[in-house]
Amino acid sequence: MRIVVMVGGVGGARFLLGVKQALGLPATGVAEPGSPHEVTALVNTGDDVWMHGLRICPDLDTCMYTLGGGIDTERGWGHAGETWTVKEELAAYGAEPTWFGLGDKDIATHLIRSRMLRAGYPLSQVTEALCDRWKPGVRLLPMSDDRVETHVVIDDPEDPGQRRAIHFQEWWVRYRAEPPAHSITAIGADEAKPAPGVLDAIAGADAVLFAPSNPVVSVGTVLGVPGVREALRKTSAGVVGVSPIIGGKALRGMADACLTAIGVETSAEAVGRHYGSRKEGDGVLDGWLVAEGEQVDVPGVAVRDVPLLMSDVDATAAMARAALDLAGVTL
Amino acid sequence: MRIVVMVGGVGGARFLLGVKQALGLPATGVAEPGSPHEVTALVNTGDDVWMHGLRICPDLDTCMYTLGGGIDTERGWGHAGETWTVKEELAAYGAEPTWFGLGDKDIATHLIRSRMLRAGYPLSQVTEALCDRWKPGVRLLPMSDDRVETHVVIDDPEDPGQRRAIHFQEWWVRYRAEPPAHSITAIGADEAKPAPGVLDAIAGADAVLFAPSNPVVSVGTVLGVPGVREALRKTSAGVVGVSPIIGGKALRGMADACLTAIGVETSAEAVGRHYGSRKEGDGVLDGWLVAEGEQVDVPGVAVRDVPLLMSDVDATAAMARAALDLAGVTL
Repeated sequence: MRIVVMVGGVGGARFLLGVKQALGLPATGVAEPGSPHEVTALVNTGDDVWMHGLRICPDLDTCMYTLGGGIDTERGWGHAGETWTVKEELAAYGAEPTWFGLGDKDIATHLIRSRMLRAGYPLSQVTEALCDRWKPGVRLLPMSDDRVETHVVIDDPEDPGQRRAIHFQEWWVRYRAEPPAHSITAIGADEAKPAPGVLDAIAGADAVLFAPSNPVVSVGTVLGVPGVREALRKTSAGVVGVSPIIGGKALRGMADACLTAIGVETSAEAVGRHYGSRKEGDGVLDGWLVAEGEQVDVPGVAVRDVPLLMSDVDATAAMARAALDLAGVTL
Repeated sequence: MRIVVMVGGVGGARFLLGVKQALGLPATGVAEPGSPHEVTALVNTGDDVWMHGLRICPDLDTCMYTLGGGIDTERGWGHAGETWTVKEELAAYGAEPTWFGLGDKDIATHLIRSRMLRAGYPLSQVTEALCDRWKPGVRLLPMSDDRVETHVVIDDPEDPGQRRAIHFQEWWVRYRAEPPAHSITAIGADEAKPAPGVLDAIAGADAVLFAPSNPVVSVGTVLGVPGVREALRKTSAGVVGVSPIIGGKALRGMADACLTAIGVETSAEAVGRHYGSRKEGDGVLDGWLVAEGEQVDVPGVAVRDVPLLMSDVDATAAMARAALDLAGVTL
């Protein structure tokens, strides 16, 4: 089976662990030789940012570390056993920004990435090179090799009455998404091209799943790359989304702030309708997986309710199996 | 008094501590307001190197950390309390080179420097910005803002019979200067311009001292920047060198390997003659300070012998006072 999964960071990475287990792939490391299954993750890069001269790709790294067995499982992002010496030292110089969690181990990843990017390698090849160490057992494809950055317009916290566009990371990490977003825009998305392999992966897939990642700034950003929506509407694969909203609350914090910004209610039904039906509209879904017991109606989309909490890999694998089943894949 | 000191790394930095004490300046931190003394260090940048996308300036940093009170005094280079997480992580990726001592705290310095250089700031301004934190109490001027890199031609350790040019750092750090150098060349020196302030500092000095730094790859490289020799020959200041060779041995390891490469004997007399007399030749010295008890003759140069070991700051300050005295400066 060729499974494509559209993902963001922490939630997406955990969902991928479940997909791997559902397919009988080892939790970390490469697939068994001769495995009939291949998983391709299309990863959001709208959170990426240059900081202190380093190119940081939070979602790609979270997926890579999680699937490669190097993630800090408590925190959900960054390295197990991480230290913060460089960050403290940068702060001692007064070098801004100081609010970003730039770990020492992480910096090695960023140094290699930044050096390769400056040498002219596209992000997709850089990611492949980094994965040569981590062996995530999943093909991690950035949604695009072009620079796309999600910016958020807020009331300037330091200059009341003025609006200011800030990088998504600043809104999310520095301000904990507290200042309401007037708008959220993926700068550069209009002119971005899908990374090599993205459209082919969708076209050749047996199933396409949307992880329960943020529908606006994660899956939504991947969908915003020109060509991706069209490929999803054309593929012969079943396309099934997993709701990140359970009982009207975001599975992981702060997704509601993003939904509000684009005028979508924080409910499984509203998000399902926002993605929309392939058959009966200009949407992208065939199926929509919601939390057990929720009554959800999305016209033209097959809705199924199952337990949705990714409390451990077994539970996540059960979710993945349900999503694959809804997509018409028989394992 | 305006004192100019030509320096390399560890030895140069220690000598500068002595010069500061000799002038009554505080060991670390800025000069007392109203101090009548100003020290300008002209620092070798031929050891500088791009590594992992970071611009590393070993001699500037050693001077900055030493004079700013942040040096590892045992090792003589790098930060006190340094850790090596990024380096280990880079090695885990297989990212070359792995032989360079790239400390975590150091990386913060390199990140800021690299970012500023890429933004178009010249190294002299970058150094000033970094010193804003360290407050070395001495004006640290890179010899040049242009890229100059010392390369060494050796018999290729991995391909016997072949010669290979390697960066000075690789020869010095990786190979401990063990493969004999067929030649040592400061690449880019011919076209380099002295950094802003270098020639003016020499012209306006009351004394110019050469620290007991490596006469080939430290002081020699500074002398190789077009205009520096001419400025030294023209200045009204006395120019006095301090021998790095004591009893036919390099004060600090491996300088003999550099001298051998340029056909100069490892002796205080030979190095003094290599620098040469301003008055009776095309050299740059008025005075040459050698170790107590050594009989040294350098035609046209006033030679004085004093205790030369920089065992502590007091001993180093005594050396500096002797050098200043020989340069005609009365404190």
